Amino acid sequence: MHVEPIRWRGKALELLDQRLLPREVHYVACRDAHEVAVAIRDMIVRGAPAIGVSAAFGIALAAQRGDDVDAAAAELRASRPTAVNLMWALDRMQRARDAGGDLTAEAEAMFREDVEANKRIGRNGAMLLGESPTILTHCNAGALATAGYGTALGVIRAAVEAGKRVAVFADETRPYLQGARLTAWELKQEDIDVTLITDNMAGHFFQQGKFDAVIVGADRIAANGDTANKIGTYTVAVLAHAHGVPFYIAAPLSTIDVNCPTGASIPIEERSAAEVTSMNGVSIAPDGISVRHPAFDVTPARLISAIITDQGVLRKPYDESIRRVFS
Amino acid sequence: MHVEPIRWRGKALELLDQRLLPREVHYVACRDAHEVAVAIRDMIVRGAPAIGVSAAFGIALAAQRGDDVDAAAAELRASRPTAVNLMWALDRMQRARDAGGDLTAEAEAMFREDVEANKRIGRNGAMLLGESPTILTHCNAGALATAGYGTALGVIRAAVEAGKRVAVFADETRPYLQGARLTAWELKQEDIDVTLITDNMAGHFFQQGKFDAVIVGADRIAANGDTANKIGTYTVAVLAHAHGVPFYIAAPLSTIDVNCPTGASIPIEERSAAEVTSMNGVSIAPDGISVRHPAFDVTPARLISAIITDQGVLRKPYDESIRRVFS
Repeated sequence: MHVEPIRWRGKALELLDQRLLPREVHYVACRDAHEVAVAIRDMIVRGAPAIGVSAAFGIALAAQRGDDVDAAAAELRASRPTAVNLMWALDRMQRARDAGGDLTAEAEAMFREDVEANKRIGRNGAMLLGESPTILTHCNAGALATAGYGTALGVIRAAVEAGKRVAVFADETRPYLQGARLTAWELKQEDIDVTLITDNMAGHFFQQGKFDAVIVGADRIAANGDTANKIGTYTVAVLAHAHGVPFYIAAPLSTIDVNCPTGASIPIEERSAAEVTSMNGVSIAPDGISVRHPAFDVTPARLISAIITDQGVLRKPYDESIRRVFS
Repeated sequence: MHVEPIRWRGKALELLDQRLLPREVHYVACRDAHEVAVAIRDMIVRGAPAIGVSAAFGIALAAQRGDDVDAAAAELRASRPTAVNLMWALDRMQRARDAGGDLTAEAEAMFREDVEANKRIGRNGAMLLGESPTILTHCNAGALATAGYGTALGVIRAAVEAGKRVAVFADETRPYLQGARLTAWELKQEDIDVTLITDNMAGHFFQQGKFDAVIVGADRIAANGDTANKIGTYTVAVLAHAHGVPFYIAAPLSTIDVNCPTGASIPIEERSAAEVTSMNGVSIAPDGISVRHPAFDVTPARLISAIITDQGVLRKPYDESIRRVFS
């Protein structure tokens, strides 16, 4: 099955409700920018590139309907603070608007370009892998996190398409279980060899020499290479470093925020305690317990072996390689 | 509230059903050794010291009833493979039996001695902490894992009793959620400051300099100090080492297996996929997905700052300090 997280229907944006996967495949129709913003905030759609493309269609809907586009842009911008692709997409739509362009055509172009960028990321990353790699991934940086094909999982798809025998270990990725619910489902749809583990098992399998590489996505990459991604990514990066396993970030250039000097400037969204303390509506912790729930963490550039982008593989020192690719 | 995981009633062993916590406080009555073995296997009771004491009462029940004590011992021995206290307790009951001793009195003595050992562990460990430490713990090495008071949480209790201002972070400890369900509940019962996080958040808080020490329990300690404990412990140890934070094991001497030369000789129990893929009876992963579920991992001695026992604090090199304490 071909995984389609975002469907543009001309007058509505249909988003695959990722909260219901893998139990149910259900699309939510968003008919205006407010509905798109709610879908982003409530994580019906998630993943930095998918959020960016969805927001662009939100602006297109606002323009079509004659709604207040500035207000729509402000609401969309506030829907998730960490993903820079959201800001990038809204800025690009603003430039198209300033130039008097067709906003629907612009959003459609962004959709197509995201898929194409992911395919380039995939090809660039697949070359870094051996013939039968076992790869650990965290969260979901797959087709479901993008307009299609995926970033980290795009590398895995491209490696499979190139004839490599790829085995994937997916961290379940608490609290939202994107690994268990989305990555495991997405790879299984395409018959790619995937094994599910809990986050805290990763160290044990590193210790056993199981992994040849780690590949994850990114929500924002600072100008020095520091990378914000789903909570738990930093732990995996420390483990990879301690075991001498390459740790790769796979992301389009739109995830790099050249105005953000280091990871210290990246806002880390703190989400609700309820997402930690209950599952499927049933409480799994004592009532009233104190909880911390940072939704992202920052992996310092020194722990990142390479950043695989649509414009090539960036290496250390990242401040230089990033400056070069943007100039 | 005083937390009582094990109640001996003369003709029955009542075990607090830890699978139902924190939602329900319910005791399961075991009237023979088979029922005790089932309770251990099904994790109604868990935690290495609690398993050992429960097994001792299982032998006492078999002897009282005139059942086949050898068969009872064999069944109990097979109920959980990793916890060495189980083997230690059964060996001790066998020696009492060989000596013609009162098996019920022997099990009762083991119960009392476990609580006393934990209080000594607590006092020995509390001295290692500053006046207002923030401590990360993993799984539940508390009153609920022992006859009472706890090992890792015994150190925390003793530090609180000594007037220190202790803050605890509890990893939820997937897949069984002993941290969320048991440690958070147990500490909250006694008004000890506890914050719940998912396992994959630990790295982020290490990075922020949040933790002054890590204290965990143990299921088996090899003669060289390598330590098997709940899955995820090794990941925490790698994180602690990478951030220069002391990593302590708290365990009674009965957890040290001097016949086991290194961690490589410790059997690691692999439990069911269903414990990973469903929660509260609801599936959280695609049907038929491949799963790995090692229930324990081994932390190498080099990552352990000290082993806090009832007979004092053991330091590196552990082969020497362990040999000394057993001689």
